[in-house]
Amino acid sequence: MAAIIPSTDRPAGVATSNNPPNAPASGMGPARASVTAAEPRIDPARLWNSLMELARIGATPKGGVRRLTLTELDRQGRDLVVGWLREAGCEIRIDPIGNVFGIRPGRRGNGFDAHGAPASDPSLHPVAVGSHVDTQPSGGKFDGNYGVLAGVEVVRALNDAGVQTERPVVVAIWTNEEGTRFTPVMMGSGVYCGAFTLEHCLAQRDREGVSVAEALAAIGYAGRDCAPRFAAYFEPHIEQGPVLEHQRKTIGAVEGALGQRWFDAIVTGQDAHAGPTPIETRRDALLTASRLVLEVRRIAAESPDYARGTVGQMFVHPNSRNVIPGRVEFSIDLRNASETTLATMVERLRASAGRIAAEDGVEVELREVVHFPPCAFDPGLVAGVERNARSLGHSVMRLASGAGHDAVYVARTCPTAMIFVPCEGGISHNEIESATPEDLAAGCAVLLRSVMQTAG
Amino acid sequence: MAAIIPSTDRPAGVATSNNPPNAPASGMGPARASVTAAEPRIDPARLWNSLMELARIGATPKGGVRRLTLTELDRQGRDLVVGWLREAGCEIRIDPIGNVFGIRPGRRGNGFDAHGAPASDPSLHPVAVGSHVDTQPSGGKFDGNYGVLAGVEVVRALNDAGVQTERPVVVAIWTNEEGTRFTPVMMGSGVYCGAFTLEHCLAQRDREGVSVAEALAAIGYAGRDCAPRFAAYFEPHIEQGPVLEHQRKTIGAVEGALGQRWFDAIVTGQDAHAGPTPIETRRDALLTASRLVLEVRRIAAESPDYARGTVGQMFVHPNSRNVIPGRVEFSIDLRNASETTLATMVERLRASAGRIAAEDGVEVELREVVHFPPCAFDPGLVAGVERNARSLGHSVMRLASGAGHDAVYVARTCPTAMIFVPCEGGISHNEIESATPEDLAAGCAVLLRSVMQTAG
Repeated sequence: MAAIIPSTDRPAGVATSNNPPNAPASGMGPARASVTAAEPRIDPARLWNSLMELARIGATPKGGVRRLTLTELDRQGRDLVVGWLREAGCEIRIDPIGNVFGIRPGRRGNGFDAHGAPASDPSLHPVAVGSHVDTQPSGGKFDGNYGVLAGVEVVRALNDAGVQTERPVVVAIWTNEEGTRFTPVMMGSGVYCGAFTLEHCLAQRDREGVSVAEALAAIGYAGRDCAPRFAAYFEPHIEQGPVLEHQRKTIGAVEGALGQRWFDAIVTGQDAHAGPTPIETRRDALLTASRLVLEVRRIAAESPDYARGTVGQMFVHPNSRNVIPGRVEFSIDLRNASETTLATMVERLRASAGRIAAEDGVEVELREVVHFPPCAFDPGLVAGVERNARSLGHSVMRLASGAGHDAVYVARTCPTAMIFVPCEGGISHNEIESATPEDLAAGCAVLLRSVMQTAG
Repeated sequence: MAAIIPSTDRPAGVATSNNPPNAPASGMGPARASVTAAEPRIDPARLWNSLMELARIGATPKGGVRRLTLTELDRQGRDLVVGWLREAGCEIRIDPIGNVFGIRPGRRGNGFDAHGAPASDPSLHPVAVGSHVDTQPSGGKFDGNYGVLAGVEVVRALNDAGVQTERPVVVAIWTNEEGTRFTPVMMGSGVYCGAFTLEHCLAQRDREGVSVAEALAAIGYAGRDCAPRFAAYFEPHIEQGPVLEHQRKTIGAVEGALGQRWFDAIVTGQDAHAGPTPIETRRDALLTASRLVLEVRRIAAESPDYARGTVGQMFVHPNSRNVIPGRVEFSIDLRNASETTLATMVERLRASAGRIAAEDGVEVELREVVHFPPCAFDPGLVAGVERNARSLGHSVMRLASGAGHDAVYVARTCPTAMIFVPCEGGISHNEIESATPEDLAAGCAVLLRSVMQTAG
């Protein structure tokens, strides 16, 4: 990976690997664990059984899960996990956007001061593991759920071994990662990092007119606690892509998330009868759109730094069999690990659009609708994940996350890393989403070791 | 035009130019008119005023017409024209599918026997002019209406000059040419030529559940008369394409109508997340569909005989911005004047689809949904239209009709020709459809001369 550009809006005073106040998270020297009772080990069967038990809530006939955010099913899912966290000795805090934090105290407390605010001393801040338990409408058993339950398994394994860490360990459940019932996506982690205001998100409504505030109250998750401040954050996740499977690797040490630039493209030609209009006099908007689809592919295929280019959505007007299309609207999604390369891709796209429009005698408009800079995870934590995978005997590779995750927002507040495990065929957001117990256990074991090193 | 293939399903015993029983229609020798009172002339202002008066029924704010078939507005339009035909001395006959025939008797009667059936002697059969007065939902003033009112003007001009023709002259209004309220399109002429059964068409229903039979009865056009049998049929029409305007010609002598082969194409790849899926592992159905759009264009551009190729309709699944499309369905409309060339175009399309599917690792299915053979109009009548245009001082060119017209069905029963006049920008099926009084008058004058020659 040539250049994942660090995000520039990291809040002042939060540790980064380059300038770590009290250096809690980076480096992950192997000699920090201060209590060595038994070497903690995760229990693969317990992890798998927890995943299967949670997957029963909202189970679909095809083996998937439909558990939309802030529904009764989401409440049941949250309650189950919260119950497990309480059984494991965790203190539960819920913030006003409904993010849940299960806190296993460290040697010097739970990371909060006497007033319930995050401790002012960064050395008291917890190490967190998290993800989400809401699903897509036709979602799978593992997306999000795995990250949360891997965190639960880490707490259980620490308990089993009688290990007390220096720092608290937190398991976080972020609200509404999927964004299918309420927008924006990654709502809970976005509020946590300050990308969105609480008020804006609470006021969002679903198609039935129910607001986030109302839905939170209805399921009993409109909390009033302060969120903890993290020393480090880990998010284990199924890859949701085919790279690990293709490369036959068990663990992905995720270097960061690709930057995204999304466009609406509008091609305006002239609609006309398909029969009477000779080929040479046409101004066919779909012809031009098709040429641009090929250009998007070509630009992505020719660019370095994990380049992606996708046309996913297209609307043809008037969309009639025997009418030459006069207008076509389509989406363009460009992604890259490097902000510079991403900018070059956009320049090439604009140049191609201008040239093809002139050649075809049509107008092409490109409107940028999303610009999400690349997110670099913490190099020290990423290197630690890679090292821990090797030391546990698992094959490992570095890769980039092409999709958004809560970790992308949390990374704006603390050193962050993700741990990917393979999913069958790279398929996710689908009821047939699948991962093996062995791979899930491997990712969880790498997580446990990384948490222990970071939490001290 | 290399080869407009004559349709092969012409009913036995009906005249063709190659084998004319009693040779009534073809050749159009200039010396056949047996009465020469004054030389009849059309009245351009009267023609224009009639068009504008009819266009008031169903007029839209943007200057177009919305007069859907068999509605109250269609009744008003039909009543207006029928009134004009009666005033001009015509006898009105209405057949069971609602086709209207205004008959100006010839020297030896009206073309029917004493029982109301078409005369068995072909030399008594009328020469007809016709088209339709129903419009598209956002239609124009001229499509169809011009052909009918040009016929009315011919009758009026013959009356003014005191000319009696040997054969009767008929003005025909065909039911439901547009096909937007009831399918199939060209219903009235299709029943007339035997392409559809009367029973099938009467049973068709619109979206509100009203049948053709009910709609005909409601507007008083469920007739019980026999339709006349024609010695020849002329249909004047705006071109609905840009060729005459581009070539700066006033009159188009239409050699025939293009054959059409329509396909549904289905590309099946694999939908996947746009972010995590590297370019090289994708099976993007929209990429393949886009390549095929370009192939359709290339095949049409490289083929002779008025070749057309159009992708007008496309549906992308799941049609989400950040999901690589796993399935794309689209239409392919290939047209050609030659059945042989059309078949070659289809072969090339199938070969391209197979090759591209293999290259892209996707499946492409092509389902043929329409196969309409090319229709050749009568060479003698077409040559007569061309000669008459020249003799009247109008620029003229031969061309093909890319669209369907009632004439395509009527041509299965008798020698047929169409006369095209330019329409502005080639635009039709649109409220801004426009034609000049001069061009419309020129086409009508060519029609008058052609009718007189053919009717004797």
